Amino acid sequence: VNSGNANACTGKQGLDDAIETAVYAAGLLNIEPQDVLVASTGVIGVQLPLERVLCGVKQAVSTLTPEGSGNTAMAIMTTDLVKKEIAVQIELQGRTVTIGAIAKGSGMIHPNMATMLAFITTDANIEAECLNKLLKSSVGISYNMISVDRDTSTNDMAAILANGLAANPVIDDEHSPDYKTFKAALDYVNTALAKKIARDGEGANHLVEVQVVGAADQNAARTIARSITASNLTKAAIFGHDANWGRILAAAGYSGAVFDPSRVDIYLGREKMCQNGMGLSFDEEKARKELERENVTIIVDLKSGDGQATAWGCDLSYDYVKINADYRT
Amino acid sequence: VNSGNANACTGKQGLDDAIETAVYAAGLLNIEPQDVLVASTGVIGVQLPLERVLCGVKQAVSTLTPEGSGNTAMAIMTTDLVKKEIAVQIELQGRTVTIGAIAKGSGMIHPNMATMLAFITTDANIEAECLNKLLKSSVGISYNMISVDRDTSTNDMAAILANGLAANPVIDDEHSPDYKTFKAALDYVNTALAKKIARDGEGANHLVEVQVVGAADQNAARTIARSITASNLTKAAIFGHDANWGRILAAAGYSGAVFDPSRVDIYLGREKMCQNGMGLSFDEEKARKELERENVTIIVDLKSGDGQATAWGCDLSYDYVKINADYRT
Repeated sequence: VNSGNANACTGKQGLDDAIETAVYAAGLLNIEPQDVLVASTGVIGVQLPLERVLCGVKQAVSTLTPEGSGNTAMAIMTTDLVKKEIAVQIELQGRTVTIGAIAKGSGMIHPNMATMLAFITTDANIEAECLNKLLKSSVGISYNMISVDRDTSTNDMAAILANGLAANPVIDDEHSPDYKTFKAALDYVNTALAKKIARDGEGANHLVEVQVVGAADQNAARTIARSITASNLTKAAIFGHDANWGRILAAAGYSGAVFDPSRVDIYLGREKMCQNGMGLSFDEEKARKELERENVTIIVDLKSGDGQATAWGCDLSYDYVKINADYRT
Repeated sequence: VNSGNANACTGKQGLDDAIETAVYAAGLLNIEPQDVLVASTGVIGVQLPLERVLCGVKQAVSTLTPEGSGNTAMAIMTTDLVKKEIAVQIELQGRTVTIGAIAKGSGMIHPNMATMLAFITTDANIEAECLNKLLKSSVGISYNMISVDRDTSTNDMAAILANGLAANPVIDDEHSPDYKTFKAALDYVNTALAKKIARDGEGANHLVEVQVVGAADQNAARTIARSITASNLTKAAIFGHDANWGRILAAAGYSGAVFDPSRVDIYLGREKMCQNGMGLSFDEEKARKELERENVTIIVDLKSGDGQATAWGCDLSYDYVKINADYRT
């Protein structure tokens, strides 16, 4: 992982540099180049200083330790303020299985896949096909449900690596209890990291969680939840602790998902703002208290079906503008 | 036109109030209620103070004058800093035809139709079908190509009214020279107002014009141009006078339109930043000068076809956040 330069929009030279990095790392690690994953994050359109990168690879390889995950999580930060790592353990048929993960991301976050870097490792014994399926579904409800600024990125990666060292009976059946236990743990890990990324959004003061329930189907719920977390106006209102729920309903409306506006209820934390698409007279002071929490929760009940989804975002602050007004220098 | 209350998300009561307003105005004007257009702009989800509105209608009707357009343009401003009006005259077969228009809009601007209010009047003698077609096509290249904050609005309207008093030979053939002359004038009027709205975007210091040329088709060009004007990261970079062209190419990339990134050239005003998808070493001082202009121009040449489109937006400033952090109070 290279941090500080995205190696994007760098043409054939950039691709050659990425390949050279992989080949060089493979040589040092005595593995095949195609087993090396190369990831970059940072400024777009500037060629990599390849010599410095290779020098860094050499140094990183020489200091590899089983406990190095925290250092890596720290090293890949750019505008991130906090490092993002997590580990959980589960028991599968008497064997302890560990899942650990690190991620980075703070701006240019509106994943259409991942738009950030996430690396998940596990000692689980699991079939590649199962693992792939689990990762895809997990990314769909975690990283793909966060937005900091609606700008999708040039550099996306979520990778999972399993080495089987836990020696649990192989997970190869998606209907087995072990599959379900592993899935729950993996979803927990990825959702926790996704929320950390949203909370650490550039300039953010709040983690905003939008729960859409009662949608016609899950897709509609996802679309509406993401539209609300991405709305500049809603985000600015949260920054200002202004209970402007009309912007929430407007963002649901322009999301493209079909719903009946005359059935919508909106809650800000425990306070109901809107019933059947119309404003209630609510206690402004209580509403402001809900908006002053570090974690702001918005619940939108469409009362039209079983579809539900949760998305995470953050507020839009002066500091977001400040950080991005002069990012390159 | 009511300014300050959107009369949106107000349910059946809101609809009844709108109808009552139209009926009341029709009575005062001695016309049919269905000939009255009702438009609102302002806070969402609050019931109209109907008595005050009807009182305002009465007062407005009593002060109607042929020269009142400027007062109307002023009266409908909300967070707008400047009023938006324009008038042009053309000659059609010896008759002078006038087109006048006013508009309002500053935030919640990302039209999918109009997301602002625009009222165009003309004394042209023109068939309703032709006029409708002309308005639609004109809205497509003007109001529908601006973005302040990517938040589409609950309250959209662009209306054109023609009374035929210029007594020009009726325009009823879209292949006629008169049709084309009228079209050019109408497009000029709407484009000029659209640019005024983008320039007066909440907190904006710059009008940003994005010209996409060489696209596979016009749709691709439109999609890319709009994606760039809507990118928070690009807008924040312009606010900071930072020539971060990588964000422009990234926004083109995630727009969904298909193009070959290895052919893209990007110009900031007269300075070329990027050629064939890769960064050039450019003069930072000259680039900064281009970004300090009140009107910033970005040209993206995809070198893949004849499609072209122009979109307008503005920068993202601290003041945008400030204005929208506490809009209701």
